[in-house]
Amino acid sequence: MTTLLGVPEVVIDRLPVYARMLAILESQGRQVVSSQELGDELGVTPAQIRKDLSYFGRFGKQGRGYNVQHLTGELRRILGLDQEWTMVLVGVGNLGRAILSYRGFAPEGFKIIAAFDTHSDTVGRTLGGIRVYNVKNLPQFLKNSPADIGIVAVNAVAAQEVADILVGCGIKGLLNYAPVALRVPDGTQLKDIEPVLALQSMTYYLKGTSP
Amino acid sequence: MTTLLGVPEVVIDRLPVYARMLAILESQGRQVVSSQELGDELGVTPAQIRKDLSYFGRFGKQGRGYNVQHLTGELRRILGLDQEWTMVLVGVGNLGRAILSYRGFAPEGFKIIAAFDTHSDTVGRTLGGIRVYNVKNLPQFLKNSPADIGIVAVNAVAAQEVADILVGCGIKGLLNYAPVALRVPDGTQLKDIEPVLALQSMTYYLKGTSP
Repeated sequence: MTTLLGVPEVVIDRLPVYARMLAILESQGRQVVSSQELGDELGVTPAQIRKDLSYFGRFGKQGRGYNVQHLTGELRRILGLDQEWTMVLVGVGNLGRAILSYRGFAPEGFKIIAAFDTHSDTVGRTLGGIRVYNVKNLPQFLKNSPADIGIVAVNAVAAQEVADILVGCGIKGLLNYAPVALRVPDGTQLKDIEPVLALQSMTYYLKGTSP
Repeated sequence: MTTLLGVPEVVIDRLPVYARMLAILESQGRQVVSSQELGDELGVTPAQIRKDLSYFGRFGKQGRGYNVQHLTGELRRILGLDQEWTMVLVGVGNLGRAILSYRGFAPEGFKIIAAFDTHSDTVGRTLGGIRVYNVKNLPQFLKNSPADIGIVAVNAVAAQEVADILVGCGIKGLLNYAPVALRVPDGTQLKDIEPVLALQSMTYYLKGTSP
């Protein structure tokens, strides 16, 4: 699958990994890094890194490596990580609570602004600093406070309906934790955070290694 | 990245999605499905489906479509889903508890057999039917009860150490929920369930659509 700009999706998926490693190197005071070193750290070939980056311009000089600070900044700009993104969470069960207490979103510029559920014992509470509203109020909430991304953390049965509501309210990106293949219109971004699918492609390689 | 058998990893990653949709069609009593229909359901092109399946043999007849039951069975066999896989969980915080209460693993043949943590208020408890042991006992436990897969649900700081212990105990597959790029030896399978990386590749496409 290729985007309009001709950059394959798998390349886009690798850029945040590069950006993260570069940020670590930058925090260690490193000024220059070679594609060889970067590849060694990440377990990919230097050729892969050079090819991936070549879609976006020329970042390094032959034999001199990449300027760490410059490349980090460029990748963050390319990926849209130089701005804040707002999110709403739908589904505040065990998984939703783990998501609300997850401290990895905010430092990266992803901000949950509200959560939604149907259960009367959850609605009205504040969990992890986030207010939980009745899911009935989701359209009105998004009308007043538009958000970029919707997190689907309901069960498999309710997931498609929740996705439809979010898309209908103008949400352009869905992070799906439910174990179903959601259907979304063209132009809506969907990422699945789904342990079973990940496991099921892992077992292909594990066959025959069973203890 | 290509496996020894020459099947690209992205193809393997798509097979469980096909298998899941086929199982749904089978449960609805469908006997035959075309690559066109399958593609429409999943949002991929029929050509992609035909090409992906062609790595493993000839499953359909030109113009007749695929036998749903046969293809489901073959994909499950290819992926190793016709057997049970055992897992241990390390880290029983909010996320670990959500994982223990997740009901999607067992029906797919993935069985958590034990959980491990360091906190005295968690060790010794039984959560979601699973006993929580002190992480110190992990090597001895795995010696007596080998497991296939380790789930890493500790924080970013502890994740590499936990991964090293699991790999050292003979675990060949890691499902990593910690927001770090783990280093594992060749031959160890690693899948990251990492919301921030997923979000960071989504924002590339969301740029300019901000509400």
